[in-house]
Amino acid sequence: MGTIVVGYVPKPEGHAALRRALEEATLRRARLVVVNSQRGGRDVEGGAAAEVDVDLDGIRRRLDEAGIEHEVRHLVRGMDPADDLVAVAEEVQAEFIVIGLRRRSPVGKLILGSNAQRVLLDAPCPVLAVKAEED
Amino acid sequence: MGTIVVGYVPKPEGHAALRRALEEATLRRARLVVVNSQRGGRDVEGGAAAEVDVDLDGIRRRLDEAGIEHEVRHLVRGMDPADDLVAVAEEVQAEFIVIGLRRRSPVGKLILGSNAQRVLLDAPCPVLAVKAEED
Repeated sequence: MGTIVVGYVPKPEGHAALRRALEEATLRRARLVVVNSQRGGRDVEGGAAAEVDVDLDGIRRRLDEAGIEHEVRHLVRGMDPADDLVAVAEEVQAEFIVIGLRRRSPVGKLILGSNAQRVLLDAPCPVLAVKAEED
Repeated sequence: MGTIVVGYVPKPEGHAALRRALEEATLRRARLVVVNSQRGGRDVEGGAAAEVDVDLDGIRRRLDEAGIEHEVRHLVRGMDPADDLVAVAEEVQAEFIVIGLRRRSPVGKLILGSNAQRVLLDAPCPVLAVKAEED
C-alpha cells in the first residue's frame, strides 16, 4: 500500500491540497499522512492552536468516513514546513506529496512561495501542486 | 475520460515526466497528450529536428503498445514551452499536467527553472512535478 503525504494548513490552499490528496488516496487505495506544521513555541497563541486542533479533528472524521487509512501529524518542532514535509515523505517513503499553492500578492497574482519551491526541489518523490480556489 | 497533459523534451527530465504520465494515464484510464515544444524557425538545426522526430515516433509506439489513447503534439510556433503547455491544458481541459524538473547547476543542485515556475503558477489545473533520475 502506497502512502501519500499532504501538507495541511487551515487556509484555502490547505483545504485544496487535502481535498485532492483524499481523491488520490481513494483512487490509489493509498494511506494518507496529513502533516500540519507549526512553528510553535511562543509564536503560537492559544486561540490559534485550539482552532487548528478543532480543524484536525474534523479532518480525522472526514478521512474516517471516507474509509481512508490515515495519520494526522501536528508538528510543533520549530522546523520550516518544507523541512517537515520532506522529512515525513522520506520517513514513510511517500509515493508523492500534495501541496497547495496560495495567492499572495495584493492583486491576487500567484507567486511561488519559498516553502513550495523547497518542497518541489527537496522532495524525495514527485510533488502534486494544486491551487486554492478563487475567493 | 480525463486527459493528462505532459511536457516532453528529449532529456532526462522529459523521460521522467513521460514515464510518470504513462503510469497515471494507465491508472486513471485517461487520455494522454504529449506536448513537445520547440522554439522553431531558424534556431532549429536539421539534425536536432530529425532527432526529435525519431524520438516522438518511439513515444507513439510506446503509448500504442501500452494501449493508451494519445496524441503527440510537436509544436514549433515560437511560444515558450510553458505557454504551450498551459494553452494545451486549457484547450483539452486537462485533469493535470506532468512536468519534469531538471538539474541545472554545475554541482547538480536542482533549481526551479522559470518554465517550471510558470507552468505551476499559470496552469488551469494541478501540476505533478517529477524529478529526473540522477545521471
